[in-house]
Amino acid sequence: MNQEHLRSILQAVAEGSRSVDSALTDLRNLPYEDLEFANLDHHRALRTGVGEVVFGQGKTPEQVAAIVDRFVEQQGRALVTRASPEMVELVRQTHPDARHYEAARLLTVGEFPAPDPQGPFVAVVSAGTSDIPVAEEAALTIELHGARVERLYDVGVAGLHRLLDRRQILWQAAAVVAVAGMEGALATVIGGLVSVPVIAVPTSVGYGASLNGIAALLAMLNSCAPGVSVVNIDNGFGAGVCAYMIVRNQKCE
Amino acid sequence: MNQEHLRSILQAVAEGSRSVDSALTDLRNLPYEDLEFANLDHHRALRTGVGEVVFGQGKTPEQVAAIVDRFVEQQGRALVTRASPEMVELVRQTHPDARHYEAARLLTVGEFPAPDPQGPFVAVVSAGTSDIPVAEEAALTIELHGARVERLYDVGVAGLHRLLDRRQILWQAAAVVAVAGMEGALATVIGGLVSVPVIAVPTSVGYGASLNGIAALLAMLNSCAPGVSVVNIDNGFGAGVCAYMIVRNQKCE
Amino acid sequence: MNQEHLRSILQAVAEGSRSVDSALTDLRNLPYEDLEFANLDHHRALRTGVGEVVFGQGKTPEQVAAIVDRFVEQQGRALVTRASPEMVELVRQTHPDARHYEAARLLTVGEFPAPDPQGPFVAVVSAGTSDIPVAEEAALTIELHGARVERLYDVGVAGLHRLLDRRQILWQAAAVVAVAGMEGALATVIGGLVSVPVIAVPTSVGYGASLNGIAALLAMLNSCAPGVSVVNIDNGFGAGVCAYMIVRNQKCE
Amino acid sequence: MNQEHLRSILQAVAEGSRSVDSALTDLRNLPYEDLEFANLDHHRALRTGVGEVVFGQGKTPEQVAAIVDRFVEQQGRALVTRASPEMVELVRQTHPDARHYEAARLLTVGEFPAPDPQGPFVAVVSAGTSDIPVAEEAALTIELHGARVERLYDVGVAGLHRLLDRRQILWQAAAVVAVAGMEGALATVIGGLVSVPVIAVPTSVGYGASLNGIAALLAMLNSCAPGVSVVNIDNGFGAGVCAYMIVRNQKCE
Amino acid sequence: MNQEHLRSILQAVAEGSRSVDSALTDLRNLPYEDLEFANLDHHRALRTGVGEVVFGQGKTPEQVAAIVDRFVEQQGRALVTRASPEMVELVRQTHPDARHYEAARLLTVGEFPAPDPQGPFVAVVSAGTSDIPVAEEAALTIELHGARVERLYDVGVAGLHRLLDRRQILWQAAAVVAVAGMEGALATVIGGLVSVPVIAVPTSVGYGASLNGIAALLAMLNSCAPGVSVVNIDNGFGAGVCAYMIVRNQKCE
Amino acid sequence: MNQEHLRSILQAVAEGSRSVDSALTDLRNLPYEDLEFANLDHHRALRTGVGEVVFGQGKTPEQVAAIVDRFVEQQGRALVTRASPEMVELVRQTHPDARHYEAARLLTVGEFPAPDPQGPFVAVVSAGTSDIPVAEEAALTIELHGARVERLYDVGVAGLHRLLDRRQILWQAAAVVAVAGMEGALATVIGGLVSVPVIAVPTSVGYGASLNGIAALLAMLNSCAPGVSVVNIDNGFGAGVCAYMIVRNQKCE
Amino acid sequence: MNQEHLRSILQAVAEGSRSVDSALTDLRNLPYEDLEFANLDHHRALRTGVGEVVFGQGKTPEQVAAIVDRFVEQQGRALVTRASPEMVELVRQTHPDARHYEAARLLTVGEFPAPDPQGPFVAVVSAGTSDIPVAEEAALTIELHGARVERLYDVGVAGLHRLLDRRQILWQAAAVVAVAGMEGALATVIGGLVSVPVIAVPTSVGYGASLNGIAALLAMLNSCAPGVSVVNIDNGFGAGVCAYMIVRNQKCE
Amino acid sequence: MNQEHLRSILQAVAEGSRSVDSALTDLRNLPYEDLEFANLDHHRALRTGVGEVVFGQGKTPEQVAAIVDRFVEQQGRALVTRASPEMVELVRQTHPDARHYEAARLLTVGEFPAPDPQGPFVAVVSAGTSDIPVAEEAALTIELHGARVERLYDVGVAGLHRLLDRRQILWQAAAVVAVAGMEGALATVIGGLVSVPVIAVPTSVGYGASLNGIAALLAMLNSCAPGVSVVNIDNGFGAGVCAYMIVRNQKCE
Repeated sequence: MNQEHLRSILQAVAEGSRSVDSALTDLRNLPYEDLEFANLDHHRALRTGVGEVVFGQGKTPEQVAAIVDRFVEQQGRALVTRASPEMVELVRQTHPDARHYEAARLLTVGEFPAPDPQGPFVAVVSAGTSDIPVAEEAALTIELHGARVERLYDVGVAGLHRLLDRRQILWQAAAVVAVAGMEGALATVIGGLVSVPVIAVPTSVGYGASLNGIAALLAMLNSCAPGVSVVNIDNGFGAGVCAYMIVRNQKCE
Repeated sequence: MNQEHLRSILQAVAEGSRSVDSALTDLRNLPYEDLEFANLDHHRALRTGVGEVVFGQGKTPEQVAAIVDRFVEQQGRALVTRASPEMVELVRQTHPDARHYEAARLLTVGEFPAPDPQGPFVAVVSAGTSDIPVAEEAALTIELHGARVERLYDVGVAGLHRLLDRRQILWQAAAVVAVAGMEGALATVIGGLVSVPVIAVPTSVGYGASLNGIAALLAMLNSCAPGVSVVNIDNGFGAGVCAYMIVRNQKCE
Repeated sequence: MNQEHLRSILQAVAEGSRSVDSALTDLRNLPYEDLEFANLDHHRALRTGVGEVVFGQGKTPEQVAAIVDRFVEQQGRALVTRASPEMVELVRQTHPDARHYEAARLLTVGEFPAPDPQGPFVAVVSAGTSDIPVAEEAALTIELHGARVERLYDVGVAGLHRLLDRRQILWQAAAVVAVAGMEGALATVIGGLVSVPVIAVPTSVGYGASLNGIAALLAMLNSCAPGVSVVNIDNGFGAGVCAYMIVRNQKCE
Repeated sequence: MNQEHLRSILQAVAEGSRSVDSALTDLRNLPYEDLEFANLDHHRALRTGVGEVVFGQGKTPEQVAAIVDRFVEQQGRALVTRASPEMVELVRQTHPDARHYEAARLLTVGEFPAPDPQGPFVAVVSAGTSDIPVAEEAALTIELHGARVERLYDVGVAGLHRLLDRRQILWQAAAVVAVAGMEGALATVIGGLVSVPVIAVPTSVGYGASLNGIAALLAMLNSCAPGVSVVNIDNGFGAGVCAYMIVRNQKCE
Repeated sequence: MNQEHLRSILQAVAEGSRSVDSALTDLRNLPYEDLEFANLDHHRALRTGVGEVVFGQGKTPEQVAAIVDRFVEQQGRALVTRASPEMVELVRQTHPDARHYEAARLLTVGEFPAPDPQGPFVAVVSAGTSDIPVAEEAALTIELHGARVERLYDVGVAGLHRLLDRRQILWQAAAVVAVAGMEGALATVIGGLVSVPVIAVPTSVGYGASLNGIAALLAMLNSCAPGVSVVNIDNGFGAGVCAYMIVRNQKCE
Repeated sequence: MNQEHLRSILQAVAEGSRSVDSALTDLRNLPYEDLEFANLDHHRALRTGVGEVVFGQGKTPEQVAAIVDRFVEQQGRALVTRASPEMVELVRQTHPDARHYEAARLLTVGEFPAPDPQGPFVAVVSAGTSDIPVAEEAALTIELHGARVERLYDVGVAGLHRLLDRRQILWQAAAVVAVAGMEGALATVIGGLVSVPVIAVPTSVGYGASLNGIAALLAMLNSCAPGVSVVNIDNGFGAGVCAYMIVRNQKCE
Repeated sequence: MNQEHLRSILQAVAEGSRSVDSALTDLRNLPYEDLEFANLDHHRALRTGVGEVVFGQGKTPEQVAAIVDRFVEQQGRALVTRASPEMVELVRQTHPDARHYEAARLLTVGEFPAPDPQGPFVAVVSAGTSDIPVAEEAALTIELHGARVERLYDVGVAGLHRLLDRRQILWQAAAVVAVAGMEGALATVIGGLVSVPVIAVPTSVGYGASLNGIAALLAMLNSCAPGVSVVNIDNGFGAGVCAYMIVRNQKCE
Repeated sequence: MNQEHLRSILQAVAEGSRSVDSALTDLRNLPYEDLEFANLDHHRALRTGVGEVVFGQGKTPEQVAAIVDRFVEQQGRALVTRASPEMVELVRQTHPDARHYEAARLLTVGEFPAPDPQGPFVAVVSAGTSDIPVAEEAALTIELHGARVERLYDVGVAGLHRLLDRRQILWQAAAVVAVAGMEGALATVIGGLVSVPVIAVPTSVGYGASLNGIAALLAMLNSCAPGVSVVNIDNGFGAGVCAYMIVRNQKCE
């Protein structure tokens, strides 16, 4: 409820065209509506191009399908992360055009914006072959929001030349998503090379003392390079949203 | 801002004794005020008898003294937990009547309700001598809120008869606060003896594999006795508030 | 053995109708029986309306079925938590009327009290869709004990308006069970909104640094809101019992 | 090689009935043999009645069967712990009389001593139904070594009377093995009741913050009762050996 | 060394105005210089307005003073984080104009850019009084880089209205730094309110199960709100750099 | 209350020399007294030669002194573990003959039994110089209970010959206490050498990944040698009591 | 690109036989190539005899087969660690001569050097039967690089004589790889016996408090024997490479 | 006792120049002496040039001084690690020429070999200023054993060019010690650059989620570069010994 609406109610009361009781009834429910949450949610969808997202993991295919239906009805589209093949199959029964990004475990229904080919881009960098699913989750999340991505995969720091070889791309990126498991050194090395924000994503790739990604997580949190912040283990989607939020602010460049 | 106030504004507008613009200015700030938070805070103070509390630890004596001054002005009194001797000394310069409960590390300024001698009581039980400061923090928190406490100290389960000896008091309590470090078995044994809620407080008493209270905390969380819930290590104040909230609801018995 | 029985023995000895040796034999076994444990257990069942409960997890269907049989014989009914479909199937062979609350993983045999529609109620609040099984375990536990529940599901704090929208229910509750995984912030936000006890239940919902619920558990234990106590990860039953014990004490209101 | 043997070799050399070279060959291998390890191993078997044991877990049925064959040949019998059904089946192909203690997951081939009905006994106490496999592993380990066991199962401290009810047995035991998961309070309560050594065995029974037995392990290590020592989680065999070693030393009583 | 420089060397060789040996000497050092690291470092200083920073903690005052001298010589200024009073005193002997931001534990020597009053701003939000040093470290880091900050302190989520009261500022911010200890719920609540990147800073404020900030760290990593990334415990400086890098990219708006 | 007492009461009632009411009053308090706890405590003191012990750590010198006074009055003597110099000084003001075992941090008042020179002995073995305080705590605890000790110090397994050199003593011991920090391998090596119970005491000696003794604790719990059980980190007293309880049972050998 | 090449380019420019532009094109790509990474990689293959290796775990059989194809093409051979039977089967479809070392989970395609029978050797020592797969991974890694190995399996320190029995081999080794799970004491005992580098490999063999190998890892890191360094849990390959790198440097002895 | 000695004894017995009893006395002590431990220790000193070392931390100055005296008497010299100023002072009272390497916290008494200027060298590399004490401990340990060291300090990977700048030295080293705290990425980057063994030393430099060096330790254990092994946190001495043992084997190159 904006000020204009509020003023019009008061005006009607002042003019006698509306009773005090009737106005009171309207105003009683003001509090939280005027918190502008609804506006916020509306704005968020407008600005991000996607809106709310379904986290598939831990849900049944039936639950996911039902939420997808509701989102498609409300938002015109739906994005599911950590989508299992069973979820994809079930959703496709209702939405035959649902698109499955298998490596990234993403599922989309409806139209999503195409990445802006002129806009700033995010470099999504990953260390090893096994990190690619998480990297793809990040990359596609960014692209589905309408921003551009450059992928630099398999450039782990144990073979430093592979990374340095592509440093020009790193230096042109508006933000970097660094995806690595094991010792997670990639984030620090990149953080030392660029001067834009680096979103580090530890992955659960590794064994033994990798503690399912805790080792990489701790390493990234302790990065001695400034400008590095970290998301949860394997959280490619979260990193993608962070990076998109950063890059979206630069469209006018 | 309650409905009566809202109605009086609308009434004034309807009667023309107030302009739309003037009313609008008042109403613009409605949203959160009408969330009834203020009411809530007011109610809370009325019902609990105390209101907001100062957590002393990690604050400088100067910070504590300043907050105490503000609270005394607003609420007529102040309660400081984890009060150091330095804090006590500084506060007493302004409030010579400040009271220091040394064992419990509590500091009060102003009048607090006396425990109701007819009301239901909380049994505060502790295992060892070193657990007493935390137990006292809980016990006094309850008493300063106006409820009655029975103290059962030094009744650790390694000497079970000490606890069983006082079982009649346990069976009459409306709630129990169980304070123990080391292996924290006290909470489970009490939980098996009573049928009222048990608030378990692990303490950092112990060494080595007690991990500063983590061992007792884990044990209490895994209690095989129903009706046991747990607060943070050494959090006598938190347990006291929980127990008070429970016992307050029984005043009519 | 109550005092009357004791007196009658002594009386018989005084009257010579019973020998000292015969009386001695009876009294030798007095000690623990007179500890009133039996009484306690009897009272507990009377007051809670349920009695002892079977924790299904980690038991074989055969073990569960055997315990259910014994409980039904002794208590007239049985409640199994963490009941697997296999347990349900096996129990139903003997007790065709056994009831399976699938979402909550509960199994009941026999009659349970209906929730008192006039009594105080517990608000069971959960953050996400995946938290519902635990929330339902808590809610049904309360209802099967005869108390009333209001469910507020899917009101995670990342969309604060969903929770605030239903604050009136929160403010009328006699106790709150707050169920959340991931970062567990729900307990603190609710703890700041209400002035009744909040039983927080961390769930294992999440991945990576959620450490199977440890992150939520720690967050809840560190809640900066007073009145919050915590039970084990996914322990909906335990939270339900705690809340029921609290709300039962208010029936006379 | 004892001194008499050594002297006889030297004597033969002195007498010229044996050449220096021949004696040298014998003596070259002296060092470790004279460390009396062989003697030790021989003594151990004699005194313990069992000898070396096969830990089945993590081995293939083929590996286990081969080791069993070797042990039967060397020691006349074999004891396998953590024996899977597959191991039992395979061993029985060669040793049809192999005996499978299913609850305890033990497998024996050959004759073992019967428990001495007059000797001192170990009380094996367990908290819940799910702890029984570990308790049985301990109890049978003791019995297979020839010592007597009294079993006190399902006497968790949440129902203290169940344990106190059988306190006479506890007070007659020469040692106690206390088996419990979850919060592990059983060890401390028993430690406070008896004045003989208590071997505590944490089990992995529990969920969430039980951390697969770590909670019970920590609790037991922090026991405030003296005389309690602890073995690894679920290590019924180890506890059985410890208790047997203690009780064996009392046979002359 | 850019292409133009390289071309001019080759040109000189082609023209005979430079000998092959002389060119070779220049080119031998090409490899890493041409990696453009030097350029990068130069650019970084130009763009960020600050350059390299001294992390005071763990260094002696003498070490810090020496590094400050070198930085002032090279960069014209120096910024020390985690500066102890001893460091400040020593540095001031050489640089009497050194400025000490006591709450933030920062020390500066030389001129730093003033925050741009027209530029986008970062909202630095903190939960409790004890979190202020870390929040100030973040806020001043941003301001010393030349960007604008709005401070929202003492708005912990246990008193939600304090935060909601200032939501307009949150909604105008280009990025948010959320600083909180204990349960760290602040980051999630803010993440649900805004649609710009949130840099979460867990603090070591708390006790017991806060595990020196690990509880808040885990909570923030598991935030169910999108757009939240996390830095190390108490790392106000790192969060400030991240936020500055984000906000710097929006200057043209 | 023993049977004789019970019989005498009944006899008096049968004889009419005592009224039923008077007898009833006596018998009402029977339950726990007849639990024989008092007897147990009495027996414990008789058999162990010491009785209850004061754990000094975490207590004030005043608290310790007061408890010592009470113990001396009740038991004729007192034993304080983890006694600080301040405690010693204060206790000596009242008990000038108090004896301070400095290395072991023990304090005794009154007469303690001398070790039986003919009895079985406990071998107390320690790895390094820094482990000696814990080893001495164990050794003196055993001796003060009246059993004999052989000390084998500084025989860490990195110099295996130092341990093997003294293997004869190990092979004659009735029990072994193995004290080691760092990697705690001593317990396993000894466990493989002897066939009597080994009580392993991890110490907090070490740094970094020793995690204040957790590394040694875990190693000892995972010992591949049978017959090893473990007490808390640095718990020399607990190990001493365990070992004494074992060795006491062998006096008749 | 070495100096000679650089000089020849400059010479050609000086002589006019090459244009500035053509030279520039060559030199533009100098930076990282001249970092001598390519040389390094070339050298590494030459010296180690193997080159890059495929870590199979976490990859699909298809991914592994594709990488094997590329490696065979580039390097003439391929080595896959943690190869699953599915990977072996798929690779064999293209490379029928692929060799599967089943116990070690290694897969090779193409010719590898035979171990030098005259060269120094590495002693690979393992504690238990279940440690053999990791030990074999280390041993074969060394042999496939062309160095000699002596295997000492099943020599855990709980039966010290088994290890001491083979001490001559240990004393002749140029390096030792010590593989052990559970309490990991093997590394320390060996470290005390030899004066060459010991590479310790903790394994995940064990249960309960072994924490999947963390206990052994910590023990090995805290080894009180000098000359011991540690690799990740179950990392037989890594230990093999370390040992090979050490032993390769001794060929001229 | 070698074979020659053994033969000479037997010869004397055969020749009658020695009695059987006299020979027996000699041979009775054979067992462990012939284990060649003494020889080993002798060899170790000869080969390493240093012999046993005193770990100062956790010892009193008096203990250290006493051990130093004994070592000087036995070995002609002594090396103390983690020497406190108090230890230095006390040792100097007896050994005025004792040398204190303050940064490395080492103390030496007597003559040590000078590093061989022609021998292979170890590159000791450290990331930050605060890592220098540990790096110096490693470097001096190597030099005091007689091997050569090249120091590359302050070359953390956040400024990659600083490390690459000195890559020639890295490529000539016979082994590398990589010392780093925080995220410990240095070890992996170096491991990718060289083909000699890298001994990684995590340091406790850092704060918060560095967990006193655990983060760096885990990162190093998970290094994706082959040839990296790890020692305990801050264990510069251990790394130095490892590196020296490696480099000593190359002297003939």
